[in-house]
Amino acid sequence: MSEYAAPLKDMQFVLNDVLQISKYSNLPGFSEVSEDLVEAILEEGGKLASNVLHPINQSGDKEGCTRHDDGSVTTPKGFKEAYSAYKEGGWQGLAFDPEYGGQGLPYIIGIAVSEMVSAANMAFGMYPGLARGAADAIYAHGTDEQKQTYLPNMISGEWGGTMNLTEPHCGTDLGLLRTKAVPQGDGSYKITGTKIFISAGEQDLTDNIIHLVLARIEGAPEGVKGISLFIVPKFHINDDGSLGARNGASCGSIEEKMGIHANSTCVMNYDEATGYLLGEEHKGLKAMFTMMNEARLGVGLQGMAISEVSYQNGAAYANDRLQGRALTGPAYPDKPADPLIVHPDVRRMLMDQRAFTEGARAWMYWTALHGDLHHKAEDEETRQKADDYMGLMTPILKSYLTDKGYAHATNAQQVLGGHGYIQEWGMEQFVRDARIAMIYEGANGIQALDLVGRKLTKDGGRAWQSYFAEIDEFISDNEGNAELKPFLDGLATSKARTLDATQWLGANAMQNFNHAGAGSMDYLNLFALTCLAFAWAQMAKAALESDNKDDDFYKNKLITGRYFLERILPDTGAHLEKVKAGADAVMALPAEAF
Amino acid sequence: MSEYAAPLKDMQFVLNDVLQISKYSNLPGFSEVSEDLVEAILEEGGKLASNVLHPINQSGDKEGCTRHDDGSVTTPKGFKEAYSAYKEGGWQGLAFDPEYGGQGLPYIIGIAVSEMVSAANMAFGMYPGLARGAADAIYAHGTDEQKQTYLPNMISGEWGGTMNLTEPHCGTDLGLLRTKAVPQGDGSYKITGTKIFISAGEQDLTDNIIHLVLARIEGAPEGVKGISLFIVPKFHINDDGSLGARNGASCGSIEEKMGIHANSTCVMNYDEATGYLLGEEHKGLKAMFTMMNEARLGVGLQGMAISEVSYQNGAAYANDRLQGRALTGPAYPDKPADPLIVHPDVRRMLMDQRAFTEGARAWMYWTALHGDLHHKAEDEETRQKADDYMGLMTPILKSYLTDKGYAHATNAQQVLGGHGYIQEWGMEQFVRDARIAMIYEGANGIQALDLVGRKLTKDGGRAWQSYFAEIDEFISDNEGNAELKPFLDGLATSKARTLDATQWLGANAMQNFNHAGAGSMDYLNLFALTCLAFAWAQMAKAALESDNKDDDFYKNKLITGRYFLERILPDTGAHLEKVKAGADAVMALPAEAF
Repeated sequence: MSEYAAPLKDMQFVLNDVLQISKYSNLPGFSEVSEDLVEAILEEGGKLASNVLHPINQSGDKEGCTRHDDGSVTTPKGFKEAYSAYKEGGWQGLAFDPEYGGQGLPYIIGIAVSEMVSAANMAFGMYPGLARGAADAIYAHGTDEQKQTYLPNMISGEWGGTMNLTEPHCGTDLGLLRTKAVPQGDGSYKITGTKIFISAGEQDLTDNIIHLVLARIEGAPEGVKGISLFIVPKFHINDDGSLGARNGASCGSIEEKMGIHANSTCVMNYDEATGYLLGEEHKGLKAMFTMMNEARLGVGLQGMAISEVSYQNGAAYANDRLQGRALTGPAYPDKPADPLIVHPDVRRMLMDQRAFTEGARAWMYWTALHGDLHHKAEDEETRQKADDYMGLMTPILKSYLTDKGYAHATNAQQVLGGHGYIQEWGMEQFVRDARIAMIYEGANGIQALDLVGRKLTKDGGRAWQSYFAEIDEFISDNEGNAELKPFLDGLATSKARTLDATQWLGANAMQNFNHAGAGSMDYLNLFALTCLAFAWAQMAKAALESDNKDDDFYKNKLITGRYFLERILPDTGAHLEKVKAGADAVMALPAEAF
Repeated sequence: MSEYAAPLKDMQFVLNDVLQISKYSNLPGFSEVSEDLVEAILEEGGKLASNVLHPINQSGDKEGCTRHDDGSVTTPKGFKEAYSAYKEGGWQGLAFDPEYGGQGLPYIIGIAVSEMVSAANMAFGMYPGLARGAADAIYAHGTDEQKQTYLPNMISGEWGGTMNLTEPHCGTDLGLLRTKAVPQGDGSYKITGTKIFISAGEQDLTDNIIHLVLARIEGAPEGVKGISLFIVPKFHINDDGSLGARNGASCGSIEEKMGIHANSTCVMNYDEATGYLLGEEHKGLKAMFTMMNEARLGVGLQGMAISEVSYQNGAAYANDRLQGRALTGPAYPDKPADPLIVHPDVRRMLMDQRAFTEGARAWMYWTALHGDLHHKAEDEETRQKADDYMGLMTPILKSYLTDKGYAHATNAQQVLGGHGYIQEWGMEQFVRDARIAMIYEGANGIQALDLVGRKLTKDGGRAWQSYFAEIDEFISDNEGNAELKPFLDGLATSKARTLDATQWLGANAMQNFNHAGAGSMDYLNLFALTCLAFAWAQMAKAALESDNKDDDFYKNKLITGRYFLERILPDTGAHLEKVKAGADAVMALPAEAF
């Protein structure tokens, strides 16, 4: 049976020592969050994660969701009670606008709590996570009336929410979608069509579910320019706010899948369901993307979270399991064998994972802070830059953190040997659950294409130029700091390689777009390593400047950082070489040869 | 529903064009295998794989094995019939000594057939695979009487076989094992103990099962030096060869695990079971290792095989599924969208997989040929060198091919997006099945340690020196061949880096063994890339020298080889850098910090 304890000290180190969020007390929501309050919130969140959510993670996987003949879906044992605890704790509205019942705390605090929830029980976390995404889209694009109608109950957790994009014949290419919307003359539409892979599409946790559905209004232009977004509640809502009759939205079946068994993945049938336009006609994709960007960060977070929880269980096993002797001679001669942790290759797996997870957390929280700055900073320049960074980092975080989250869950499983392969220990579930994060909310290849095709070129490359300038400034500001030098050198080399790759793409992709596509994933991974190198340089600086720098915690942080420099960062060279190889060998085979 | 077609043309290319097995017609077993016969065998094997074994791969996964209250185990629907077809086809004895009923064909042909079986249905293939391993051990270490008693029925497929090593408290560290053997004075022993993770431990496919069990004879020395190997038949064998009473060996339970559901992974209880010493007292581990080396190659083969079958299904989907448009403009303007195969990043995934699989096949078959040469070559020098190569390559192939097999099954799954995550298409099963190969028959970290700790230093490094000399000779023999130059350059660079890493380990590991351990996996992966580069150089040469060099098959081979050079081989630089980073950052954290 696996366990999870929220890494409170690591989280607080990033929030307080590295990002120093107290500096932002002039911003709305930040003024309330003293270090003490942050500590209290994270502690409570940690208790929920360890004591309520994680204990039903394995049982939820084993039992899965059940669809009944009437189309209703039952979540696994214990999920209703856990959801009640989550709802009553007010976790759903933590970072939401107080006007609709939220607590208005910073987004970055919400991200820290989401990390715990995803680590403890990823399948559970998707229910409130998707509802939050739907609420964000209504908040951004809804009319005042729509906001008043839906948001308070979504923010309190009374109602759930979903995103309905994919259809049987189209996932990535939404221009092909066929679900149709027929105007009824009263401002409402009748929505008809089939959506697949709808996470949390039906469940027994909330009284109502607010589906957001992409559909094509009759007579709309073809392709992505004719897609609109609709609000389709499971139950109609009466004028007094009470729930009315059932709408024509139902779950036709649930998928049998590799993991996240405790989350219902539904085929949703819309049969003349009443829907209400959200945002403008034919601009549904844009509205959906508002929601998808935060959702993509949330998915990246899942990758990092699974890496954290699987690390904890792999490390515990490595300290506990006696097997073999240290290469340098018995470390515990009085025991029948030494614990696995004495073996360098076992440590390699755990250090890889630790160096990734800690770096990814600092990078993710740094990005989340820019989410706050984007919405709340006082000056336009800061808001703009923060928005640039969010746009740039979203695809990189989504893809890199989920690819590595899966790889590291696999690593942690490896530490347990055969015991990692059987279900009992929970390690193989982490792998199966982590796998979906590389696929949903835009498969990772799509993220790479978004990066090289859109984010790099947007506004003449302002976002990446600004980010590289910030790195340069950090390096020059800290020049002469001997203890920090290895981190600055590693960062400088990695940044130079990323710049080199960026310039190569700039020079070559215009003649042949396939050069950009062929190198997109290596480019993304190269960029990600630079982001991690920056995060580690910032953490090293914070550790070195801490008043408690001689504490083990800070010393260990520097050791882990050194491991990152020596054992993870060298991959940048190969990524650069692969980007520069271009598209020729990738595209040369005729399609029929595959 | 997934499909599988044996890659006959690729297999024949390696056997005939690259390795030119007809050159070895002076060796026993080889004289019979004309190109026509090889073609006929592979075609028949391919039919069995495609028509009999693969159709029950997904259903077998879904149903799994069932243990009944009496300890008997039922394999999934269709497995008995498939096993009968396999048995009646004579596949089990293909490469076995005719004295015991085998066909005496080359080992390399057996490997090609095993590839098909593992690709089509890995869980099925483990039943005959383990029996073959047990038969190999009896053949190598048994008395004449033991061979006569057990081998004919094992080789015909009438009886199964297993390997019993792991106990609840020990897997890798067999020195800790507790199963005991008490001599009965009549040459037999009573075996008592519990073994776990015993693949194919109980099943309904064969009339008898010959268990090979590691145990400690009462009063034997502690540790690995007191372990003996025993033959423990499920049913006693009467003097007339008929089956007698049930022995005290039974299946206590079967594991619920991540994959290979159609293979029964048993807890085996030995309760005063009658056993017969195989080989010498206290030298059981050595005898078991004879069997494990071939078993390890077989596991490496599983990794490559799963990469092949998952590639085939990913590629078929990429040609079929219409989604998005080519970056360079619509490739099929008359269709609603282009097939996935136009997208460079989809091709990257498939080309990665293809370049790996084709290279791995050539390298694996080359190694198998040395298995034949080790046993059959006329001169001692050739036999010695072949044995050196087998020892050197075994851990590298086992680890690298299974790590990559899993990674590539994951890649192929990614090509299908959400459809790859649901069970229907069979892609997620390939991932779950492939995962075990990284763990069993010695976890991959153990392979890396075997390589740096034993295989590199054995006989003063004769094996790797001889291999590197062979590479140098190949390069100098082909100097001036302009078309081959990129392959020779890539091979030379990779070999130089591997030599550099080897020398670094030689110079540093003696002062601190942890340096060897910390770099062992990167070293293994670096060495593997050199082996693949050699395999690709050999394939490129064969393609260029073919009488049909202008055929698409050969041209595509060279394109795929170029992809390997440009997009896979660059990783050697990072591996070298990581090896040379040494153990300091790996070992610096105190155990309690994990």
